[in-house]
Amino acid sequence: MSKNNKNNHIKESPLFWPASMKGNALWVLDETRIPQKLHYIQVRNVREAVNVIRQMKTRAFGQFLVVLNTFLLVIRKNKGRPNKVLAAAVKSAAKRLNKSRPTFPFSEVTSVVVGWAEEAIKKGLKADVFIAKNILGYLAGIRARRLKRVCKIADTIKDGDSILTHCNVSGELAMAASICQKQGKEIHFFATETRPYFQGSKLTYWELNRMGAKVTLIADNAVGSVMADGLVNKVIVGSDRSCANGDFANKIGTYQIAVLAEEFGIPFYVLTQPSNRIKRGKDIPIEIRKAKELLRYSGKRIVRGPVKGFYPAFDVVPHNLVTRAIAIDVR
Amino acid sequence: MSKNNKNNHIKESPLFWPASMKGNALWVLDETRIPQKLHYIQVRNVREAVNVIRQMKTRAFGQFLVVLNTFLLVIRKNKGRPNKVLAAAVKSAAKRLNKSRPTFPFSEVTSVVVGWAEEAIKKGLKADVFIAKNILGYLAGIRARRLKRVCKIADTIKDGDSILTHCNVSGELAMAASICQKQGKEIHFFATETRPYFQGSKLTYWELNRMGAKVTLIADNAVGSVMADGLVNKVIVGSDRSCANGDFANKIGTYQIAVLAEEFGIPFYVLTQPSNRIKRGKDIPIEIRKAKELLRYSGKRIVRGPVKGFYPAFDVVPHNLVTRAIAIDVR
Repeated sequence: MSKNNKNNHIKESPLFWPASMKGNALWVLDETRIPQKLHYIQVRNVREAVNVIRQMKTRAFGQFLVVLNTFLLVIRKNKGRPNKVLAAAVKSAAKRLNKSRPTFPFSEVTSVVVGWAEEAIKKGLKADVFIAKNILGYLAGIRARRLKRVCKIADTIKDGDSILTHCNVSGELAMAASICQKQGKEIHFFATETRPYFQGSKLTYWELNRMGAKVTLIADNAVGSVMADGLVNKVIVGSDRSCANGDFANKIGTYQIAVLAEEFGIPFYVLTQPSNRIKRGKDIPIEIRKAKELLRYSGKRIVRGPVKGFYPAFDVVPHNLVTRAIAIDVR
Repeated sequence: MSKNNKNNHIKESPLFWPASMKGNALWVLDETRIPQKLHYIQVRNVREAVNVIRQMKTRAFGQFLVVLNTFLLVIRKNKGRPNKVLAAAVKSAAKRLNKSRPTFPFSEVTSVVVGWAEEAIKKGLKADVFIAKNILGYLAGIRARRLKRVCKIADTIKDGDSILTHCNVSGELAMAASICQKQGKEIHFFATETRPYFQGSKLTYWELNRMGAKVTLIADNAVGSVMADGLVNKVIVGSDRSCANGDFANKIGTYQIAVLAEEFGIPFYVLTQPSNRIKRGKDIPIEIRKAKELLRYSGKRIVRGPVKGFYPAFDVVPHNLVTRAIAIDVR
């Protein structure tokens, strides 16, 4: 069985590829409705794309997919029109997508697409074909490399492992769990609930459970306790940003889990997207979110009263606490 | 100024003494309505006492106060009746209080009061006077010793301290903060929200803030981050149970805070009720609560879906992680 065939047989989690084209529309998984509903939102134009991003219906990798696929929508709409008209439409879409949120992390990607439009004009190529080919190739490459990382994660997991995870790693861990099952490995997961957004309770528990993996939800406060009781022998987490020296930033709480893992001699693995742009963890800017988010959930008030709080959304794990980074292959 | 005068001038937190007699009734602070309302429930008889305990309107020390004061209600009701009638009423009340919750921690206290009734009969004393005198003396002793501990806590806190606390220590920390303010000490608190019950968001933030202390609420996940950023220089927590060797049990999450404090060389203080009944931490039975409590708050569902969870309500901190125990004086 070739590697590709093997990859094709991996059961896919909806969170792995939460946005894709079907016919003339883009369909985006509404992550705010998980685990209640597996609902996809139809996106037909730039305005609707900006809306799903602005309303945070999708996050992280999902937003990235929405951005790239939105350019495919723009190309379809301008099919047959002159290169200059298409390039202007691409540029306008990029501008509107960049403004969708105050701190939009994908402006680099939009500028790459704008660059392709300019390249097509310069080289006298058909812009719609050239841009679409580049976007589809880019997406296919990322897909293949992510599937490869899923296999790497599965290789890291051994029979009998009990794995603690925090926040959500967009499908990859759940899919690795599915491979492990096929390989006959008996494994178990502990998912932290991941306050204040409950990504663990909402997304990670749901997708692991859905893939047939054994998973137990715990409060973030119980990490030390389950480690002390010998209930965990491996930690696997994702990362939002990696540094040249191996430090990385991830959802708040990851750092203290790394310290506890070190204390108990539990191997600590992190999924990374290697980058040399940032030298070390200290240089990563940490988003400080509004304290009131500690008191609300899904628009509902959980607790009334206090207002002064401190809510750093991420923390930084120094490389010396990392047993091994499971990196995505660099293109 | 005598010691007593000094104690009398401590501004009291409602959580310090949440149940007391006024006229013919016992008034019990409804902790489930804090911080929205400072509401006291009137308790006129054993049935109503059992209800406030069963509905968990009061917890820990509050339950203890309800139990003792309920016997004062029984005595009032049976005033002037023969010793035997009173003793039977006391015995019946004890039985009903003991059955108020499946794991009722105050059956020892009720048996002490039953013992006083029997002693009065044996010695031919007036049982109502004898029991009431003992209960009032017992309560006064506890009050004095807790006020003394408040002063000890205030002595432990130095000018410029930034103190992390977890869960709630029933008024004592907030009252110590008030003393520190009068002493001119500039201090600051970080209160963890304390999932899954939010005692930090609901009770600790509220009472510290109410006493005029500077307090910042953080997610339990942010403890490692604020320590790494040098924002905390002392940890003070309570304890639910102490062992002969200095190990102690407290709200889940305390253990990992102790490990993190050790990692950063931050002194870790615990308020204890010394006891030699339990030898060491391993011997403390840990209450495992229902996993669904991870998904609900105040009867409302926070997150839908997952059901398999693990929720140990407490964890055990080994004595080697404790810098110093701030003990309540033994009688």
